Amino acid sequence: MDMSSFTFIKPNDIEKRSFEIIKNELASMGKTLPLEYEDIIMRVIHTTADFSFSDTLCFSQNVCDAFISALKNNAVIITDTNMALSGINKNALKNSGCRALCFISDDSVAKEAKERGVTRATVSMERASSIDAPLIFAIGNAPTALIELYNLISKGFTPKVIIGTPVGFVNVEASKELIMESGIPFIVNRGRKGGSAVAAAICNAFLYRLNL
Amino acid sequence: MDMSSFTFIKPNDIEKRSFEIIKNELASMGKTLPLEYEDIIMRVIHTTADFSFSDTLCFSQNVCDAFISALKNNAVIITDTNMALSGINKNALKNSGCRALCFISDDSVAKEAKERGVTRATVSMERASSIDAPLIFAIGNAPTALIELYNLISKGFTPKVIIGTPVGFVNVEASKELIMESGIPFIVNRGRKGGSAVAAAICNAFLYRLNL
Repeated sequence: MDMSSFTFIKPNDIEKRSFEIIKNELASMGKTLPLEYEDIIMRVIHTTADFSFSDTLCFSQNVCDAFISALKNNAVIITDTNMALSGINKNALKNSGCRALCFISDDSVAKEAKERGVTRATVSMERASSIDAPLIFAIGNAPTALIELYNLISKGFTPKVIIGTPVGFVNVEASKELIMESGIPFIVNRGRKGGSAVAAAICNAFLYRLNL
Repeated sequence: MDMSSFTFIKPNDIEKRSFEIIKNELASMGKTLPLEYEDIIMRVIHTTADFSFSDTLCFSQNVCDAFISALKNNAVIITDTNMALSGINKNALKNSGCRALCFISDDSVAKEAKERGVTRATVSMERASSIDAPLIFAIGNAPTALIELYNLISKGFTPKVIIGTPVGFVNVEASKELIMESGIPFIVNRGRKGGSAVAAAICNAFLYRLNL
């Protein structure tokens, strides 16, 4: 391998250079991102190397204010997977005074899910909904988590924000459409794509806004 | 939302149905996957909803035997991120008698990386290379991890398998090409795409082969 294929760059500059490349390529595609969402969309592209997210990420009108307001009021971020939880920047989270939790691996959640014939994600959402704090849901995997959130919302539950970026083939697209009709501020990636890393990247974009 | 948009399906059947959909869509694209790698490629598509992985995943000729042999001999899987570590199925891992480790969040790794002006991933790989066990590297994020592995290999280090699926824009593509020239059995996703979830999905595909 010819070492000239490598860019010699300091660790701290890698992300900056990546964002420059993304910005240039978006420009060469003739795409202009809405300023309000630019950092979020860029961070998702950075996480996936998939520019199609710039076409499919959907934002409710009030979601940025709702997200920042929740983070300023000691929000609890609930994820549906430990992967999403791992992807949230722990230093930025600590600086924000917020916490992040995931119940999917709790033994009691698994037990209840098995008994009721529902997914562990469904039970996790029920558990989370009783937490007394501004709640942000970051759902990158389980459509059943979004469906359960919709059910809870229709019974009066009011989370502050829902990130809906499950990935997959069964009920994924429909569950995201459902959340967009829930009346709760949302960021949803329409279609099949998404993932835990995408949900975490969106959380990090807002945490970095706070930490600026 | 019209509830007829949803497929009513038992939790345990969601993955099975997803794989049927993926298989059907691959067939309708006229794509036939090599039997030896079919479960691995399908699992990556399941994780990403991105069929382009069927064109870009590269396998060294001997990698499946090397992977299974390592897993049968109490391998240690080393990941470059806690996300990849989280994505590995812990029950399947436990059943295999293997372990998975990640050093990226160790305080001493951060300290040494800062002092030396290298990435934490670089230091993590050095630490891992001294573990006395068959080593499988599952690298889904950091090109610098792959570059460091290449350096260690050129000095005589012999990991059993390297999964190289970093995602991104700076040195990602070149670092993957480097690993394909290392002489070590590999699974690499050519190009910019990949991610921690992809690296974990590949590990899981092999763990599930063992657990059949």
